[in-house]
Amino acid sequence: MSDGTKRNAPLALMVEAPDEPGALHALTRVFLEHEANITHVDIAERREGFSTVYFELENVGGEAAHELVDDLDSLSLVRAVELAPSFQKVYGKRIIVVGGGAQVGQVVVGAVAEADRHNIRGEKISVDTIPLVGEEELAAATRAVARLPRAVALVLAGALMGGEVARAVREIRKKGIIVLSLNMPGSVPDAADLVVSDPVQCGVMAVMAVSDSALFDIARQRGRRY
Amino acid sequence: MSDGTKRNAPLALMVEAPDEPGALHALTRVFLEHEANITHVDIAERREGFSTVYFELENVGGEAAHELVDDLDSLSLVRAVELAPSFQKVYGKRIIVVGGGAQVGQVVVGAVAEADRHNIRGEKISVDTIPLVGEEELAAATRAVARLPRAVALVLAGALMGGEVARAVREIRKKGIIVLSLNMPGSVPDAADLVVSDPVQCGVMAVMAVSDSALFDIARQRGRRY
Repeated sequence: MSDGTKRNAPLALMVEAPDEPGALHALTRVFLEHEANITHVDIAERREGFSTVYFELENVGGEAAHELVDDLDSLSLVRAVELAPSFQKVYGKRIIVVGGGAQVGQVVVGAVAEADRHNIRGEKISVDTIPLVGEEELAAATRAVARLPRAVALVLAGALMGGEVARAVREIRKKGIIVLSLNMPGSVPDAADLVVSDPVQCGVMAVMAVSDSALFDIARQRGRRY
Repeated sequence: MSDGTKRNAPLALMVEAPDEPGALHALTRVFLEHEANITHVDIAERREGFSTVYFELENVGGEAAHELVDDLDSLSLVRAVELAPSFQKVYGKRIIVVGGGAQVGQVVVGAVAEADRHNIRGEKISVDTIPLVGEEELAAATRAVARLPRAVALVLAGALMGGEVARAVREIRKKGIIVLSLNMPGSVPDAADLVVSDPVQCGVMAVMAVSDSALFDIARQRGRRY
């Protein structure tokens, strides 16, 4: 995840095969035979007994890539193989915003406006959100950020968060996720990397913190409140 | 994808194994032996030579699930196996908003406020965005929506979109994605399911169109403009 941007262009493939036990096992045998490493995989579509599986592979390019695609295509269970642009190339890094609808909306206004400025200059930064209520739901959404592909930062946008959510914040920070919090009651602000009172400003700073081009250094801002 | 909400609770697992060719092939052999079908898979983390792979499996529960986990755990390449709540349970359906920063921000304000109301009543609806410029980038982002896990609707929020983007809209509509467009010059509004002039209202309608609980029926609104 954290090394996602350093990779060279991976081989990105869409493979259509029966939606049944053993299908992925059969496909991955071909990758093993070509010593290709899988860096991303997900099931894009499941319909009418077939599923379309999306792979990004490294250590394979040029002529070797053509041979791999031919070998996949010749499997009797494979209905179609198609080359595709990688998600890393299309959607880039992800900032996740979680909390109350009122605050999440304003954080995203700031984050999307700032991401627009970076994306125009060639970066790819996405802003993903879910409005949620309840300590258990918020803690689960926080912990899940560490498992989301291409996620690099989380903004907690609520008016009261603590307890299990603060524990989840500390866990995902150890896994390399940057966590920003609005200024609010509860123990989450103390657990976050950075606290920002204004939601629009908080969204802008989240993008600055993950951008390759911004001068903003989260290591120098850690523990501060604005 | 479209049947994502009808599934019963899948078995969701995090498996830590070496980040090398053949690892996924070895893990999927265990699933095949248990006749478990993989409904979601992605690589959540890659660090220090190891990767954490996240799986959701169907056709396996109760005692069979315990045996499957034990068999995985006994593989020499597996460093850890952990049960996890599924993304479907935590983040639910995804609405993707793509276009200019100014318009995307306002669409999300509407969509997040409306999703909040649905999520409080027990649904799970996420709103994901990327601000982008350029026909090629917009067409790639549009086509990629059909491959994004749990994505059900796209909102195109710009001031001029047509050509390759309109072709991409027609392609993903055939794959079951609902497409809303702001009212704007270009051929995208004609290609979309529904056109809404006000961005906040457009975001609200996107959520209503994908919600299980709303009375809004996209089939009856198709081709209309508000």
